[in-house]
Amino acid sequence: MPHDAALAELTLLLGDRLSRSKPDLAQHGQNETWFPETPPDAVAWPETTEEVARLVAICARHGCPVVAWGAGTSLEGHALAFAGGVVVDFARMNRVLEVRPGDMQAVVQPGITREGLNAELRATGLMFPVDPGANATLGGMAATRASGTTAVRYGTMRDNVLALEVVLADGRVIRTGSGARKSSAGYDLTGLFVGSEGTLGLVTELTLRLHGQPEAVSAAVCAFPDFAAAVEAVIATIQSAIPMARIEFVDETVARIFNAQSGTAFPELPHLMVEFHGSEASAAEDARRFGEIAEGFGGLGFDWATTTEERNRLWRMRHGAYRACIAARPGSMGMVTDICVPISRLAEAVAETRADIADLGLQGPILGHVGDGNFHAILLLERGNAGELARAKEVTRRLAERALRLGGTITGEHGVGVGKKGLMALEHGEAWDVMARIKRALDPDGILNPGKVVEVSQ
Amino acid sequence: MPHDAALAELTLLLGDRLSRSKPDLAQHGQNETWFPETPPDAVAWPETTEEVARLVAICARHGCPVVAWGAGTSLEGHALAFAGGVVVDFARMNRVLEVRPGDMQAVVQPGITREGLNAELRATGLMFPVDPGANATLGGMAATRASGTTAVRYGTMRDNVLALEVVLADGRVIRTGSGARKSSAGYDLTGLFVGSEGTLGLVTELTLRLHGQPEAVSAAVCAFPDFAAAVEAVIATIQSAIPMARIEFVDETVARIFNAQSGTAFPELPHLMVEFHGSEASAAEDARRFGEIAEGFGGLGFDWATTTEERNRLWRMRHGAYRACIAARPGSMGMVTDICVPISRLAEAVAETRADIADLGLQGPILGHVGDGNFHAILLLERGNAGELARAKEVTRRLAERALRLGGTITGEHGVGVGKKGLMALEHGEAWDVMARIKRALDPDGILNPGKVVEVSQ
Repeated sequence: MPHDAALAELTLLLGDRLSRSKPDLAQHGQNETWFPETPPDAVAWPETTEEVARLVAICARHGCPVVAWGAGTSLEGHALAFAGGVVVDFARMNRVLEVRPGDMQAVVQPGITREGLNAELRATGLMFPVDPGANATLGGMAATRASGTTAVRYGTMRDNVLALEVVLADGRVIRTGSGARKSSAGYDLTGLFVGSEGTLGLVTELTLRLHGQPEAVSAAVCAFPDFAAAVEAVIATIQSAIPMARIEFVDETVARIFNAQSGTAFPELPHLMVEFHGSEASAAEDARRFGEIAEGFGGLGFDWATTTEERNRLWRMRHGAYRACIAARPGSMGMVTDICVPISRLAEAVAETRADIADLGLQGPILGHVGDGNFHAILLLERGNAGELARAKEVTRRLAERALRLGGTITGEHGVGVGKKGLMALEHGEAWDVMARIKRALDPDGILNPGKVVEVSQ
Repeated sequence: MPHDAALAELTLLLGDRLSRSKPDLAQHGQNETWFPETPPDAVAWPETTEEVARLVAICARHGCPVVAWGAGTSLEGHALAFAGGVVVDFARMNRVLEVRPGDMQAVVQPGITREGLNAELRATGLMFPVDPGANATLGGMAATRASGTTAVRYGTMRDNVLALEVVLADGRVIRTGSGARKSSAGYDLTGLFVGSEGTLGLVTELTLRLHGQPEAVSAAVCAFPDFAAAVEAVIATIQSAIPMARIEFVDETVARIFNAQSGTAFPELPHLMVEFHGSEASAAEDARRFGEIAEGFGGLGFDWATTTEERNRLWRMRHGAYRACIAARPGSMGMVTDICVPISRLAEAVAETRADIADLGLQGPILGHVGDGNFHAILLLERGNAGELARAKEVTRRLAERALRLGGTITGEHGVGVGKKGLMALEHGEAWDVMARIKRALDPDGILNPGKVVEVSQ
């Protein structure tokens, strides 16, 4: 077996928290999308930073790959051990270590999920707002620089991680950042590790920026005659400095699918879903001003909600969209695209993408985070249909070229993994080589999540 | 002369835009604080990215140091050529290249100052909010990860630089980031270059995030019985999610000095100065809620302003504080400290610092950005008094230890340069070595601003 020597030492370190059982390997070889099952050689469940450090030191000595695993919800094959080795599952490092209400910070372990964290924060009046949809772990969210529906107001993981504890490729443990809200003390290593997808180090602790639970929340759903009008309404809202906590888009296909499955009667038109957080007075005022702007751009069929129950009803179409779309084509799996462009080019990007999907004979309802200029097509692919997969890859290639032509990026929030690696040179040119240099400087033997993000053999 | 061969080639490239004249060298060897005059071997005024790239390639071939120069307002000796070589003055690369109103972005060259930029933006309804006090260049502000009075609302340079064009140490030109508001496409190189103080590359273009000019602004000054009460008021305001655009602190010494010099009659007590940006309704409402909170913590003598003229009058004490303090001790120069701590520890940090300054027989009025937990003591030192300088360095050393003990950082916004380099190991431990590895990976010959931020001989 490959890596036998390393695995023998790891068993001495972890006992039965190192597994080579088929079911464990199979479970940690799965993914939510189109990558083939890729079981690792072993799965480890460390319980402390020191164990992670020792584990990495052992693997470094033997040249055994180390791949971090959170909830397994990433979409670009980030956590799959394509080169074999050990998957490090952080499920047993899932505690809130400290909440600092005065500073609005929490210190957590990487294996806690965002829902778990918010459940623990509920009584404090504070919340961690980043919401990528899936109930991902905070470690995984940091690794992919996740964002989601609330980034328009609260920022992405880049903005909400203040400090990290990281195990380096040689087993050393460092701390980056501090409890201060800002710092100019040298290179921003926190920012470098956030989004590095486990290729530069393993995050073992995160200090997070928290936000107050809003006193009041108001939400609305409205339809627009076309997507361009919806985007114009959002741009005007942003320029008026009306703080939207969420501003989401679904296309008419999503509305149709949702109506068919849920017995709702949304107009089969593009929809915006918007949410405002604030005091009773400010949330109401923000909602009123948004309503005025949206009507000016043809918004219609407004449905407003302020209670939690009503809001959940309104948001159901958005939250259920992914599952509803997959269910709309029985036996299909989703390949989810993820470009992000300057918002002034968003309508154009969506229109061209719809044309591409139709051209290539695929189905791909579209939804997205319109305030960020970020949207997803959920390409519905028949499992095992190589032709469809190839055409879907062609869609993503065209999307990447489009994103770059419009001044954007090939991935707004899903990350690179292996799925987007072939497009990195297109986006970054020589800057991709700078990333590779950093990788070589921090992981000279290439044991940390090898094959992801960068090409080190360049 | 050192670097003669490099300078001869640079003269061929730049003609009379390369100077070795004594006045030019002297002017680019000065600094605003206590570092000795340090003239470089030459000063270059490139006009294009291509010229910067060729300049760096020539210097790389000859091992000649390259030090970027913006407005020369940095406080830790960042732009002084301690190892000789060429200072690159970006004064002729000072244009706004593009304003994108729909995306609320501007593309600028590094030599434009923040006041110059905002003057050009005035008619667009947009603004660039980061305000470090000095009329620094955007290139310099990015290099030091500057922030200042508005960071509590709008963030620091880290949050407001979306993309960069950078000349690397070998003369290659790369682009980092994009016009998208967010991205997960690999390592955050933009964030790495912001705050790298010219040691990893020379920034030749910046894409900045703009913000709407507020429809309405309201401001207030009020006194507090002691600093701890003022901090409690600020914490309560933040927890109430009242968005302060600025929240500044000056101590009673600043109030006294200002009264003496300006004939004002502020109570000789700690003061908060606060500003709210929003609609007429929201700015007034925010101000009202802040007033209630502040009164609850003993705030008194409120002076409110909504017109520009009245606001300028209110803010005069804060904006004039540095000059007023220096003038209060004729013949002195300032050494400005810069720690940043979690806000819950700010009162403690300030109290201990005041005791230290008194202990060591120095004068040092204190002011700061209380919403960020960042404060400055302006140590007033007699020019040429070696004993006072040594005691001031002892104050900064104790401040650094205090910052770290309280969970903060040795510099909130001024950066490292050479002044704080001796304290970097204290803050970062092994992580400082990670910074050095990155430096060696990107600038193996060490020609970019040598001797700053990192220790590469480790």
